[in-house]
This record gives sequence, C-alpha cells and structure tokens, in this order.
Amino acid sequence: MGSEHRFPVRVYFEDTDLSGVVYHANYLRFMERARSDMLRAAGIDQRGAFESGEGVYAITNLAIRYRAPAKLDDDLLIVSRVMDTKAVSCVIQQRVMRGGLLVAEADVTAAFLSPEGKPRRQPQPWLEAFRRLQGEEETV
Amino acid sequence: MGSEHRFPVRVYFEDTDLSGVVYHANYLRFMERARSDMLRAAGIDQRGAFESGEGVYAITNLAIRYRAPAKLDDDLLIVSRVMDTKAVSCVIQQRVMRGGLLVAEADVTAAFLSPEGKPRRQPQPWLEAFRRLQGEEETV
Amino acid sequence: MGSEHRFPVRVYFEDTDLSGVVYHANYLRFMERARSDMLRAAGIDQRGAFESGEGVYAITNLAIRYRAPAKLDDDLLIVSRVMDTKAVSCVIQQRVMRGGLLVAEADVTAAFLSPEGKPRRQPQPWLEAFRRLQGEEETV
Amino acid sequence: MGSEHRFPVRVYFEDTDLSGVVYHANYLRFMERARSDMLRAAGIDQRGAFESGEGVYAITNLAIRYRAPAKLDDDLLIVSRVMDTKAVSCVIQQRVMRGGLLVAEADVTAAFLSPEGKPRRQPQPWLEAFRRLQGEEETV
Repeated sequence: MGSEHRFPVRVYFEDTDLSGVVYHANYLRFMERARSDMLRAAGIDQRGAFESGEGVYAITNLAIRYRAPAKLDDDLLIVSRVMDTKAVSCVIQQRVMRGGLLVAEADVTAAFLSPEGKPRRQPQPWLEAFRRLQGEEETV
Repeated sequence: MGSEHRFPVRVYFEDTDLSGVVYHANYLRFMERARSDMLRAAGIDQRGAFESGEGVYAITNLAIRYRAPAKLDDDLLIVSRVMDTKAVSCVIQQRVMRGGLLVAEADVTAAFLSPEGKPRRQPQPWLEAFRRLQGEEETV
Repeated sequence: MGSEHRFPVRVYFEDTDLSGVVYHANYLRFMERARSDMLRAAGIDQRGAFESGEGVYAITNLAIRYRAPAKLDDDLLIVSRVMDTKAVSCVIQQRVMRGGLLVAEADVTAAFLSPEGKPRRQPQPWLEAFRRLQGEEETV
Repeated sequence: MGSEHRFPVRVYFEDTDLSGVVYHANYLRFMERARSDMLRAAGIDQRGAFESGEGVYAITNLAIRYRAPAKLDDDLLIVSRVMDTKAVSCVIQQRVMRGGLLVAEADVTAAFLSPEGKPRRQPQPWLEAFRRLQGEEETV
C-alpha cells in the first residue's frame, strides 16, 4: 500500500515565464524539493552521504505530463509515492495538485552513484527506508 | 527524412549543483533554448505571436533519459529533430551530445495555446515550417 | 520603528552549484520569495494587480554583500524590513540568516510600473501597507 | 586603459517572468557567464583549479542598477571590464547592453577561496591575467 508524502509549494515570480504560468522545467525543481523532503523525513541524510564520499542520487529517467497551468501565488501540493525499490535505484511517482486539480504528474527514477559516478548499492538503512515508504515492510 | 537542428550550449556554474554535474532540470532549459532557436531559424516569431495575442507554445509531455553527466565548461550540442506535426501540436526529439557521447535524450510534445490556454491550431505558415523541418514537404 | 518580516527558506540541490554552496544569484530568488510573502501578509495582491492591468513591481537597484556560505539542507531565515516608502518606490533591507549567523544582506529598491513599464504611483492601500510595515503610521 | 570583454546573450523563455521581461536575478546568471568566458579567454581554467583542489571564486559584493527591461528574443551584449586586481580578489564592472541601450550595470567583487572557504591568494598566472585585462601591464 505504502504512504503518500505531501509537500506544499507556493508559486513565486521566479517560477513563471512571460506566458504567465509556471515554466515547464520548474516543476522538476518543485518535485526535487518534495523528494528531498520525503528522504529527510525518512531519516536519509543526503548532505552527510555526499560530504562523507558515500554517494549521491542522480535522476536517470523522468517522464512528465502537464495537465493544467499553475500561476503566481498558487498553493500547490506535491504528492509523492515510492513505486519500486531496487538495490541501486528507486522509482517515485509524483503529482502536482492545486486543490483537487491535477496540474502535472511524473514518474522519476533515481539511482545512487558513487563519487566517481558509478551506480552503487544504496546504503542498507536507506533501502529499508524506501521499502517502508513503498509499503513492503510487511511482505518481507 | 527531415533535417537536424544543432545548437551549442556551454555549461556554466549556474547549471551545476553540488554533486559537480549539471542539475537534471537544467537540461530542459538547454533543450528549450534549442527549440526556440530552431523555430526562429524556421521563421517562427514566438514573441510576435505572444504579443499580438495569437498564442504561445506549452509543453504537454516530456520524457528524458539521462545517459552521462555533463560538467562545468563542457561544450554541449543539442540536436533536435521534428518527429510529428499535427494541427495543434508537434513532437520533437532532442539529444544532448558532448562530442560523440550521448548525455541525454528526450521526446517533447508542444501544443499551441490561445491566450486563454485553450489548444489552438498552429498558424498555417508555422505548420508548414514544421513540416519542412520534419521533411514531409516532398510527400504532400 | 517598524517590524521585521521573517520567512524560512530551505536549501535544495537546485540552489547549489559545483562549489558546494548556494549559487550567488539564488539568494535574490530567496529574497524575492520573502518580499512577496511580506506583501501578501500585508494584504497586497500582486497577481490581482498584474491581471487587472494595474501594474507590477520591478527591482531598480540591488546591492548585496555575501558574508558566509549556505549549504544543502540549511534552514535559512530571510529577515525583511521596509526602510523607505515613496510614491512610486520603496526600499527594503533584507538579511539572510542561519541561526545567529549572517549569510548575506541586501538593500533592494522596488518601483511600481504600469503595464507599459512606466513608473506609477503605488495603489493607496499599498502605500499605507508599506508605511505600516515601515512603522510610520503613528507619525502621520 | 584595459580592454573590454564582450559576450552575447540571447533571452529565452526561462529568463523571463510573468511581467513579460527578464527576471531580475537572471541578469546575475548572464553576467557570470560573461565573467567565466572572459576568464577562459584569458587562460584561466576554473574547472581545473576546482578539481585539483586549488580553489574557486566566490562573489563577495554585487551592486546592480536596472535601467531598462529586456524581453524574449532580445540580443544582449554583456560588456565586462576589470577595474581592480588585488591578491585575493578583483572587481569587475559589467554592463548589459541592447544595441546602444543600457539595460543594467553592475559592480562585482569576486574573491578566490580555498576548498575550505578561506580567502586565498589567486594563482600567480591568474593575477597576471587579471592585470593584463585591467591594462596595468605597461605601468608595472
């Protein structure tokens, strides 16, 4: 079953472009903030892992569908759900909502990399954290 | 067959993040620059169409695969190819190259929207420009 | 005397560059979020004014001193204070703090512009809101 | 006398905000591109110095005056001039031009920092490069 992580984002001038709505690339920034917040809440210290030379996540695949525009001052909610957890990567589904309206939805694959940029098994406590988020803990 | 549009991008500090490579959302900025340059070269005046109230393009779908990192000072080449042209939208395939190395590749769907945000038939000369880029002119 | 407006900002990957700290231009984004929040809290509806054709603020002068770096995951506080209120512009002093440490400080002048880009007297209720923020209400 | 470095920048959708003009923080990105290009042309390898652990530049002070708006598709020219060169820092004056029109002008102070973030004497060949840019070589 898993659980959903919810992260609020306000739209500021920096996020819009001259067409009056949020610039398409900026949703990726919103979604990364939400993923980082989800990881932090799950006890995953990305900065510590980076500074100690353990590694860092990199996005390997991302597919996004834009459904409705968002505008200045909008209160958005980024809803994230872990869909799959493998040794070196995980898949996260993310929806950008404004009230009950779906603004955008994406499937994001992130892989853990060594400082040299090679795929590396995620730290064991992190794997367990992702599996808890995914809702698999009872099946193991 | 169609033709490829080639657009150079240099990587600056603004494009990188603390992991030392280009932040994943910034490739979308690079690819948008390349599409805008391709349109300008094809005689499509996006600013004029926006200011006259004719309309503006919005991205509706984007799927990107990240294959290799890019770093500060890298000379990248964005290679764009129109794959499909419909009345209100078109599909563009874009590859980010560093020399012979594929850094990222994406499929991007853009739709033309009225100032109210409704899908609108692309201006006829623009449709013809996209079809020329796509290489269909000889088949009509 | 006036009052200080306090606005929290978390540092995400998007904000950093390869040197490992927040990219210098991104503090301007943080400070603009704080100013927009301060205006919203004071009852100033920037989006409404823009959409109704009344006008929009533009920065005319900005001076920033960078005092200490900020890093991924840092919890920053943007402290803003209105220093001067004129008919068409106001001056806001902003400090970026991490706990008791001063990260950056800036003086920002914003002018109200008509849709044609000409300086325009700020709406009267907004002027009064700025003067309340500045702490001049008792002196008038 | 010194020499001016000239760097062209095109305005894209990513650079604008809903008010229809370039977002104020984005001029700092344009100016950083120009400085990096000036350094590269002068033989200064910022990426090499960073990767070898020698150090990296950080902005310590920046004052910018915005004089005229810039819009989508504008061809801007960033004109940079080294004004002062000290052991650990230098001052660069930068103007953003559109044809003969001054769009923005800034004074920027950059300091060289060790990987630990401490001010460090700039590498001797870089100091000499800055002095050549500044036009002091004939006076020494």
